[in-house]
Amino acid sequence: MLNIEHVIVADWGSTHLRAYLCKVNDTNNLDVIDTAKGLGITKIDKQFEQHLFQLIAPWKDYGQLPIILSGQVGSTVGWKEADYLSCPVLPKKLASSCFEFSCQGHQIFIVPGLSCETADHNSDVMRGEELQIFGLLLNKPQYQQGRHLICLPGTHTKWVLIDNGEVQLFKTAMTGELYDLLTNHSVLIQKQTDNFDLDAFTLGVNQIKNSEVASLSHNIFSVRTKQLFGQINEDNACSYLSGILIGSDVHGAIHANEWDISNFESVLIVGSKKLVQSFATALNIFGYESILLEEADVAIAGYSQLYKSLFSKT
Amino acid sequence: MLNIEHVIVADWGSTHLRAYLCKVNDTNNLDVIDTAKGLGITKIDKQFEQHLFQLIAPWKDYGQLPIILSGQVGSTVGWKEADYLSCPVLPKKLASSCFEFSCQGHQIFIVPGLSCETADHNSDVMRGEELQIFGLLLNKPQYQQGRHLICLPGTHTKWVLIDNGEVQLFKTAMTGELYDLLTNHSVLIQKQTDNFDLDAFTLGVNQIKNSEVASLSHNIFSVRTKQLFGQINEDNACSYLSGILIGSDVHGAIHANEWDISNFESVLIVGSKKLVQSFATALNIFGYESILLEEADVAIAGYSQLYKSLFSKT
Repeated sequence: MLNIEHVIVADWGSTHLRAYLCKVNDTNNLDVIDTAKGLGITKIDKQFEQHLFQLIAPWKDYGQLPIILSGQVGSTVGWKEADYLSCPVLPKKLASSCFEFSCQGHQIFIVPGLSCETADHNSDVMRGEELQIFGLLLNKPQYQQGRHLICLPGTHTKWVLIDNGEVQLFKTAMTGELYDLLTNHSVLIQKQTDNFDLDAFTLGVNQIKNSEVASLSHNIFSVRTKQLFGQINEDNACSYLSGILIGSDVHGAIHANEWDISNFESVLIVGSKKLVQSFATALNIFGYESILLEEADVAIAGYSQLYKSLFSKT
Repeated sequence: MLNIEHVIVADWGSTHLRAYLCKVNDTNNLDVIDTAKGLGITKIDKQFEQHLFQLIAPWKDYGQLPIILSGQVGSTVGWKEADYLSCPVLPKKLASSCFEFSCQGHQIFIVPGLSCETADHNSDVMRGEELQIFGLLLNKPQYQQGRHLICLPGTHTKWVLIDNGEVQLFKTAMTGELYDLLTNHSVLIQKQTDNFDLDAFTLGVNQIKNSEVASLSHNIFSVRTKQLFGQINEDNACSYLSGILIGSDVHGAIHANEWDISNFESVLIVGSKKLVQSFATALNIFGYESILLEEADVAIAGYSQLYKSLFSKT
């Protein structure tokens, strides 16, 4: 192991850049000592180097630290392309497949994404979530044995099948992106609100649960008609829409051909506090248990493991 | 019948205003002699009167003609609110429920919308399509007897159950609006194209047909992954997405609780040429026959009937 005291890790996705200055502790794990938020790769007109180094400039007194980047920064429209690893994939394969280069005296590692084939012979891909998955398996070693289903809600929800510590395959649902599009640009929402109304959310989930084939394009129009006829109002229309979309996402996962959800004791949900709660509520309405995990904890655990793999081999 | 020689009719929806200057012919039907296109009600900052009279100014030599308006112009966010008529509704009820007022010396009629209750106890609404439906029944009197299913694709697809000439109930799918949102604002489409690729469209419809529960939020991500892995390209990605969305819309209609689609010999599709063809192709992939009708013909027939009802009673 090199005598490294600090390292910078960052999740650089389409819409956000979240960078962490970390101290390497006595057990060679990472402790976050500072954070910085920047712009996603779709918002910086390909000025990757300038944007990153401007963001981490306040940390320059720490020297030319190694930088580990995950997420869309490694995609075809990112800074440097890091391959997709084909599933099934064990955590340790990530480190050996990072794209490594130097920039402004910093050693930079871009983490590869994962790809898989689903039951209908489609491919699916992820970038960034793999570190959360492997961090979770590290923090909760009991899930390294047997089969488990992990749900990572976000702009794109990922439903991930784990088998003996390997990522076996996964499926993507565009739930968060659809929510953003429909609240910002559609006829359904006249007034965007941040408040979460549990009754309206539950009504939305049940709308999907009780409808014939849970057709999303047919069901979302009820966001408008329920407002027209006074069953929901402008202030809770966003919560109702969220219930429709998350209900539809969960309904799709429950009926996936790739797994039998009733075989899992609980679904593991990893993400931001509000989202994991919403997905747990929706799963519960459909009759399934879940265990909730905060994404910040598991992401740093994932970076820690990657850091150890990268620098123990040099 | 009054001695009226000309009348103006207009479909004034959310995004478009299509106005027709019509001559009343010997059989008291309307012949279009000129057309004008303006902006939808969401795009004119509530300047209804100014926008309409500016558009029809070239026709002022015809005098202060009666004006018949249908569509969102009669909604809560329109010019004047015209009620919804509860289904079941016969065509003749439209004329007696128009909202009538005077403006700049013109007698103006705003056509009411229709509302209904679906099997899951949701309400549904339409504004504008009712004239096409009644125009169709007038042009094709054979459909005034028995039960028929009409599909009117557009920004919002309407699937309409007709029973002995009455609109029994209908269901809305937001297919066109979702297509606009996803092609303009999502990660799925990098390059918008107008070309229609039948193979890519068919691939999209089959993606829905062959997937477990036709989950739209899970399936649309394949628009991105199929591009990443070279199964479709930038130039036909829009056609593939259209196949996914229209396939999903048709799949929902096939499994609707409100009707048994196998009881209909054919689905009647009314709309613009390109859209009716796409819906017919999708229905055909699912194994159902359809009959295609152009919307311009039936809309004017609907206005003709309304005109006769309005002015034969004065």
